[in-house]
Amino acid sequence: MNTMKSFASDNYAGVLPEIIQALLAANTAHARAYGNDELTTEAKNLFKQIFQCEVDVFFVFNGTGANVLSIMATTQSYSSVLCSDVSHIVTDESTSSESVSGCRLVPIQSNEHGKLDPAAVEEKLGRVGDCHAAQPSLISLTQPTEYGTIYSIDELKQMSLLAKKHDLYLHIDGARFFNACASLNCELKDLTTDVGVDILSLGGTKIGLMFGEAVVVFNKTLAKHMIYKHKQCMQLFSKQRFIAAQFNEIFKNDLWRKAAVHANQMVQILGKKLLKYSAYIKITKPIQTNAVFAVMPKEWIDLLSEKFPFYVWNPIINEVRLMCSFDTTETDIEEFVSVIEKLYGLASGHL
Amino acid sequence: MNTMKSFASDNYAGVLPEIIQALLAANTAHARAYGNDELTTEAKNLFKQIFQCEVDVFFVFNGTGANVLSIMATTQSYSSVLCSDVSHIVTDESTSSESVSGCRLVPIQSNEHGKLDPAAVEEKLGRVGDCHAAQPSLISLTQPTEYGTIYSIDELKQMSLLAKKHDLYLHIDGARFFNACASLNCELKDLTTDVGVDILSLGGTKIGLMFGEAVVVFNKTLAKHMIYKHKQCMQLFSKQRFIAAQFNEIFKNDLWRKAAVHANQMVQILGKKLLKYSAYIKITKPIQTNAVFAVMPKEWIDLLSEKFPFYVWNPIINEVRLMCSFDTTETDIEEFVSVIEKLYGLASGHL
Amino acid sequence: MNTMKSFASDNYAGVLPEIIQALLAANTAHARAYGNDELTTEAKNLFKQIFQCEVDVFFVFNGTGANVLSIMATTQSYSSVLCSDVSHIVTDESTSSESVSGCRLVPIQSNEHGKLDPAAVEEKLGRVGDCHAAQPSLISLTQPTEYGTIYSIDELKQMSLLAKKHDLYLHIDGARFFNACASLNCELKDLTTDVGVDILSLGGTKIGLMFGEAVVVFNKTLAKHMIYKHKQCMQLFSKQRFIAAQFNEIFKNDLWRKAAVHANQMVQILGKKLLKYSAYIKITKPIQTNAVFAVMPKEWIDLLSEKFPFYVWNPIINEVRLMCSFDTTETDIEEFVSVIEKLYGLASGHL
Amino acid sequence: MNTMKSFASDNYAGVLPEIIQALLAANTAHARAYGNDELTTEAKNLFKQIFQCEVDVFFVFNGTGANVLSIMATTQSYSSVLCSDVSHIVTDESTSSESVSGCRLVPIQSNEHGKLDPAAVEEKLGRVGDCHAAQPSLISLTQPTEYGTIYSIDELKQMSLLAKKHDLYLHIDGARFFNACASLNCELKDLTTDVGVDILSLGGTKIGLMFGEAVVVFNKTLAKHMIYKHKQCMQLFSKQRFIAAQFNEIFKNDLWRKAAVHANQMVQILGKKLLKYSAYIKITKPIQTNAVFAVMPKEWIDLLSEKFPFYVWNPIINEVRLMCSFDTTETDIEEFVSVIEKLYGLASGHL
Repeated sequence: MNTMKSFASDNYAGVLPEIIQALLAANTAHARAYGNDELTTEAKNLFKQIFQCEVDVFFVFNGTGANVLSIMATTQSYSSVLCSDVSHIVTDESTSSESVSGCRLVPIQSNEHGKLDPAAVEEKLGRVGDCHAAQPSLISLTQPTEYGTIYSIDELKQMSLLAKKHDLYLHIDGARFFNACASLNCELKDLTTDVGVDILSLGGTKIGLMFGEAVVVFNKTLAKHMIYKHKQCMQLFSKQRFIAAQFNEIFKNDLWRKAAVHANQMVQILGKKLLKYSAYIKITKPIQTNAVFAVMPKEWIDLLSEKFPFYVWNPIINEVRLMCSFDTTETDIEEFVSVIEKLYGLASGHL
Repeated sequence: MNTMKSFASDNYAGVLPEIIQALLAANTAHARAYGNDELTTEAKNLFKQIFQCEVDVFFVFNGTGANVLSIMATTQSYSSVLCSDVSHIVTDESTSSESVSGCRLVPIQSNEHGKLDPAAVEEKLGRVGDCHAAQPSLISLTQPTEYGTIYSIDELKQMSLLAKKHDLYLHIDGARFFNACASLNCELKDLTTDVGVDILSLGGTKIGLMFGEAVVVFNKTLAKHMIYKHKQCMQLFSKQRFIAAQFNEIFKNDLWRKAAVHANQMVQILGKKLLKYSAYIKITKPIQTNAVFAVMPKEWIDLLSEKFPFYVWNPIINEVRLMCSFDTTETDIEEFVSVIEKLYGLASGHL
Repeated sequence: MNTMKSFASDNYAGVLPEIIQALLAANTAHARAYGNDELTTEAKNLFKQIFQCEVDVFFVFNGTGANVLSIMATTQSYSSVLCSDVSHIVTDESTSSESVSGCRLVPIQSNEHGKLDPAAVEEKLGRVGDCHAAQPSLISLTQPTEYGTIYSIDELKQMSLLAKKHDLYLHIDGARFFNACASLNCELKDLTTDVGVDILSLGGTKIGLMFGEAVVVFNKTLAKHMIYKHKQCMQLFSKQRFIAAQFNEIFKNDLWRKAAVHANQMVQILGKKLLKYSAYIKITKPIQTNAVFAVMPKEWIDLLSEKFPFYVWNPIINEVRLMCSFDTTETDIEEFVSVIEKLYGLASGHL
Repeated sequence: MNTMKSFASDNYAGVLPEIIQALLAANTAHARAYGNDELTTEAKNLFKQIFQCEVDVFFVFNGTGANVLSIMATTQSYSSVLCSDVSHIVTDESTSSESVSGCRLVPIQSNEHGKLDPAAVEEKLGRVGDCHAAQPSLISLTQPTEYGTIYSIDELKQMSLLAKKHDLYLHIDGARFFNACASLNCELKDLTTDVGVDILSLGGTKIGLMFGEAVVVFNKTLAKHMIYKHKQCMQLFSKQRFIAAQFNEIFKNDLWRKAAVHANQMVQILGKKLLKYSAYIKITKPIQTNAVFAVMPKEWIDLLSEKFPFYVWNPIINEVRLMCSFDTTETDIEEFVSVIEKLYGLASGHL
């Protein structure tokens, strides 16, 4: 029987019990396919309430699907997308964006926290109207970033102003958007509608859904082509009620916030416990959501990851990413740290 | 509360209870993402046993994803795909195949039962080596066809021989493949491994899975690029165990056969009941799997579909498609037919 | 030394002497690259005068480039293009349209003269707004058709009305457009501006240019993306003056008309001479521009084509295409027919 | 009448007189289309002699066409292409590579001379076999670089070894390849066949052809798909003899070397003359082929470029590129420098 716990990724976790119940509840009788069902209608209304905006919602299967659909929606085939050099669309989605939309990703060096600096973006914005150059059309941010750090509301507003100034769209890859929102203790609309985001990939899988993400479209000028591109990029689900039901549930009683706050808090606890071993373990990024990045001895990585899988982020400097999810417990953390404690004892003994 | 039953499509139905249980059972502890989990390993072995062949399996989200990945696997960007003019890839998957793979779909007029005739395919096979012409690379059949009819094992062998003769791959779009197999009362391998199929889109959603399909690769020469194309076309699922678990279950104790036989039988019952109304209702295709096609008066269509949604297949001739699924009951059919009986009474009274 | 004459295609011919002179004249000093030169400016003005419309002009290298750019200009990636089943874009341009634009070509059975019937087009125009279906966006006609036949001005107007009615664009593949215009004894604007064409591939190579075609854009709503797509599809020429110079020359003193009328007349002469051999040679299409299609004995085809290359259009029925160009002479025709005469004598002797 | 001379680009220049003569000579009688003509056959043999290798040759229309075809030939849709951040394919070919081939360009920071360092390339070569990451397939170098600098034979060999080591193809964008070869005073084969290049974009337009480039394929494993991709990417020319004739001529009596040596020498002369003004003009790159890069006062740039167009390469630091071509004369240079001399006098007077 599978009893593994891990600090690898929130997609190693399973499904929130409330979500399971929602899936069971959705499994009654027949429902119209391809989003013409009542649960989808309910979800569409719910999104409008939550984002306080006449958003359009397109449910998709996974994060790459969400990002590719967002990019298809906001680019022409001769366009470029400005994004961080460590962004998921560049590092972990094969060539999906290029091969499906035809456009180019322009990776821009992010700062030490994995965030894009508006000045660095603006530097790349020349040659508008020059047909020889790919034409910038979209800024894509990851919130929280791949390093678990967060753009503040002010930083988002600055980036949004920059986008408007240069007639660009603003996309947010929010695979873990709920964690950012929980960390900032704000509402979803505060990070989107109110700052001028055009389109959002809102992640469901990593917060504890079984599957499913949502592309939320704030800018009405994007609406015209969306239903066709949604289908064309293979993301239209026949039994869509089973995604809608999960989103309806995650929004109910702010379930998302409970799950996200928990994951974020677990990482805070883990981070604090690691401080004791600062002679061997160095935390490398600010802990702002549900991941801690740390450098530790190679031998420790090997031994620790045997029992608790996690990712080695940068093998050159032995930097690892430890991630908590809705189902991480303090006991999990204690067990993990107890192994470190042993390693620490052995290592200190050598001193 | 949703209590609708329909004869619209097997994707209006929900999820088989056994599949629900499998999903619940899979929701324990953590599991490695992207198919590196135990349930996926189990599934891969299971597929090899069932197909009696060293197949590779790639789980995908939906039927369009399965077909596009199959086409990507078997074509170059300058290739053409020979398929029926009523095939799903032509009629109901937007331009997904063309825009993601670059190749061309060549629709060939199918016979009255929606099946491709080998002679009609061969007629389109000229100009090999002529760079001005799209180069045929793949024959794609739908089994069962969009009309619910079936290619016999002999017909499949003929098509396979044709494909080999012309150095083409043979793909089967098996969105309802289990229904075909149940109807022919044979094993899955009889319709694939043993006839020389190269790649199969094996549908899960329509037999009663919550979501998920499988691309089954029989031809080892296709293997090299598959994992990359799988990811590139946005079909790699992080929590893949939740698709694997469903396929493991559907294969257990031949659950698929029970579900498919039931759906097929329900359509037989429905078809027989309709015979009584032959003055008004004309069955237009052989009933071989879980759909019956029939022409009926426009007024009947309107009244019937208010309560029991179904698709009007050809509005010009008032042809409808009535489809049963794993959860269709004889009571559903009786209720449906009782409305017809009333309409018939009224209509006959007019005589 | 090369002294071959042929009836193969007008692209077997060389370059009009006047065009050669224009190329020599253009070869002075330096000129700004990529169309920022004086000859291109002159050409752009000339096109506006000739088409009596504020057209935009984009010079491209070849016919496939012209057609692909036209299709890119008028479609989305989820669109379909309605065209004749014998159209060049379907039969002789590989998968260029699909792989570059992402959209689908929908071949519609043309009539016996290779022309599209508006009713046949309209029949394919359902499912607007249905995201599962490729969305019709463009009607593409070939004028003259691949059979050398011509759409009359009235027929063009009908097709244009159909396009407007269904919110479609109308494209003309005019690889031999000048020949059509010469045959109808009208002006270029009569077949474009005045009938409501949106975009035209205007062929240069086949009328006697060394290289180069023009995409002429009548519909101003298409303008926004054109310069970028022009470059993106690899059709922007650095030394563009050398295409512009040729078009300026072909328009001067209606050089195009002289060349086209000549080629058309040569085919009329050839066609008339063939009538004598009607016991063996059957002309299969109306002779309206610079091609004659005829069925003749296989042995004759083999012997004739040894000396005078031409294309066998349909090998199953031994149908050939004989094409004249600006440089075909009556002597060429006489020599060609003299071989037929000999074959006829031999064949008749056998009678 | 056009009498402009420029230092803008060698594509502002016209056509070499010998090339003009070759075009005139090619314009006789008819010739088989699409490369089945005698001049193309001659060219194919000539390329084999010159490169001392059984190369395949594909004539294309322009440099972007050559590069896109080369990339299509050496990548899968999930591949990445490693190239300099200042390479033409990244900076000046729109999104042609991505949108036609589907793959990704990975710009790597080049050194101060615009050259790629093997170590910098190797750093980007991780994650082979990881389906989440675009898979490196090709290293593309520009020779000479966009800064007019040259990879030595040794440097090319090193890069070739790196490519082989990592199972990558090696492509050279040789838009001005003849200038590099002339500068190194070697043979074409020394920079290609002998160092292990797989595929070469060999530029014709910039050395003094009217139009036309050649894709030269050294690696026989690439051959299988080439003719189809050549057509598919819109680069197959019907009257191909007119490109073949030009390449035959440019190779005759090493015409290319004369033209290239001349252009290179003119730049050396220009560069030396500029040294006098070193108080105001700073040469920023080594002068190795036919371009000199220099920083000069903004006012000088404005005044100079009124009469002699040239490109401002980097407007932020007032860096210009001055380029000579086969037809640049010492008089042109003297006239140009005489304006500088005046500006210098005025400026010095201010001192």
